[in-house]
Amino acid sequence: MTDIKEYLQRGKALVETALDRNLPREDDPPARLHQAMRVSMLAGGKRLRPILCLAAAEAVNPGADALLPALSLEILHTYSLIHDDLPAMDDDDLRRGRPTCHVEFGEATAILAGDALLTLAFELMGRCAAPPPWMPLQLVTELAQAAGSRGMIRGQMEDMQGENRSLGAEEVRSIHLHKTAALIRAAVRMGAIAAGAPPEVVDSFSVYGEKSGLAFQIMDDVLNETSTPEELGKPVKSDRDRGKSTWCGIYGVRESQRQAAELIDEAVAAVRETGLQTATLEDIARFLIQRRS
Amino acid sequence: MTDIKEYLQRGKALVETALDRNLPREDDPPARLHQAMRVSMLAGGKRLRPILCLAAAEAVNPGADALLPALSLEILHTYSLIHDDLPAMDDDDLRRGRPTCHVEFGEATAILAGDALLTLAFELMGRCAAPPPWMPLQLVTELAQAAGSRGMIRGQMEDMQGENRSLGAEEVRSIHLHKTAALIRAAVRMGAIAAGAPPEVVDSFSVYGEKSGLAFQIMDDVLNETSTPEELGKPVKSDRDRGKSTWCGIYGVRESQRQAAELIDEAVAAVRETGLQTATLEDIARFLIQRRS
Repeated sequence: MTDIKEYLQRGKALVETALDRNLPREDDPPARLHQAMRVSMLAGGKRLRPILCLAAAEAVNPGADALLPALSLEILHTYSLIHDDLPAMDDDDLRRGRPTCHVEFGEATAILAGDALLTLAFELMGRCAAPPPWMPLQLVTELAQAAGSRGMIRGQMEDMQGENRSLGAEEVRSIHLHKTAALIRAAVRMGAIAAGAPPEVVDSFSVYGEKSGLAFQIMDDVLNETSTPEELGKPVKSDRDRGKSTWCGIYGVRESQRQAAELIDEAVAAVRETGLQTATLEDIARFLIQRRS
Repeated sequence: MTDIKEYLQRGKALVETALDRNLPREDDPPARLHQAMRVSMLAGGKRLRPILCLAAAEAVNPGADALLPALSLEILHTYSLIHDDLPAMDDDDLRRGRPTCHVEFGEATAILAGDALLTLAFELMGRCAAPPPWMPLQLVTELAQAAGSRGMIRGQMEDMQGENRSLGAEEVRSIHLHKTAALIRAAVRMGAIAAGAPPEVVDSFSVYGEKSGLAFQIMDDVLNETSTPEELGKPVKSDRDRGKSTWCGIYGVRESQRQAAELIDEAVAAVRETGLQTATLEDIARFLIQRRS
């Protein structure tokens, strides 16, 4: 476990340095917009999606360069948080212990900063042709499909429509699969594709991504019930206060934890059968369900 | 003038049929989101950007297929209108005589519908590799740069920051160039690139796009002062009511019209010197400053 914590720390530092270099400068006009984009991007976070993208690429080919897809995933994730936090959406004032983008910069700037980050994610992908056996534009397609109205945004929409209604297990599963797992799945797929993995390897990585993404979100629900505000950096039991149906609400904390652990076992088995060097991906998956924040 | 009106009508019909086919179906979940996307996309409009894209491609090579870039431009334009109309932005209730997206579907759905359209624009570009002499990803790059924080969104940000302040000529020029001309410039560039035009032709088309885009926005300011709500399909003098600085506010209606005509002459000269069949592009440019809505 020490090793994987170190790996994640190193990955986080690498991603943050590269983000800093690839974001528009703060003095580049419009300065206030670029400031809002930078503050939101550099406000911390686990950097899980870019790290998974890099780890997937390494598993396929230790010399592969998946930095741009990794950054685009984190940039896209951050735009989704900014828009999710808006008053018309989740109306959150705090994120990682700091004021959210619209609280610090105003709502209009937050909308535009999110739009600009989403656009920037694709601008970076425009600098990154996928190698054979893939078509050059495959990474653009992967990112767009995972993030679009049948992927992540579907999850956000269903999440919002589910407020103050009691959802069934399949509905909560659909929210988690789309809102969270779709982008985590895209992260490992894009890493593998950027490293030139054959389609069957990408398929196995997809299974890993979807299952560990779902487990990750189940654990988010568990932590929202069992963690402290100090550990989590944001209010606990907020889902319940907001009238959101959660995995724990349906299955309870203990059974949710069991299911998350089972999903991680399946995720690990899926990458292991590729015969590649997937120890890091396996350790990250296991770490996802042991974290406290 | 009759010919160009017919050409624009035909282009509009072609674009709308293709949009209908390329948008997610209304019964595809999340249905309400897809409904909001479709209603916003199919609510009319001049379809100027896609028509310019198609006309630019035709000028380079009559057999070229620029339909996907054309659609992506209109989709991206529509997302920007949905977000611009939001209460935190321009707070508009009407667009083309119909309720705006957030009025009809609620603010959260409007935010997500805009996000999903922006993402869809890039998904379509993922199906469209640019031909030689261009790199396959060039169209993605063009769209992202024109739409991003140094392009269209810069214009939106400056426009918003300029409310209730008296802006100088250079500031209004920057808003118009970024908010409007950047995407019109991208439209003709992307059409030419999709048709495999050499870089020097794309450069000439850029000049055409930027100048006619600026003239188009100047005429928008003129019409906002001189048109009737019936002709325009939205309130007139709304810029003034909102405390926005306009081209007419700086130069007056008469001088604005003169400058727009001059810009169109320069735009026409730029495409004419390519030696290509640019009669349609020339007619469209001239039409832009003769319209009444």
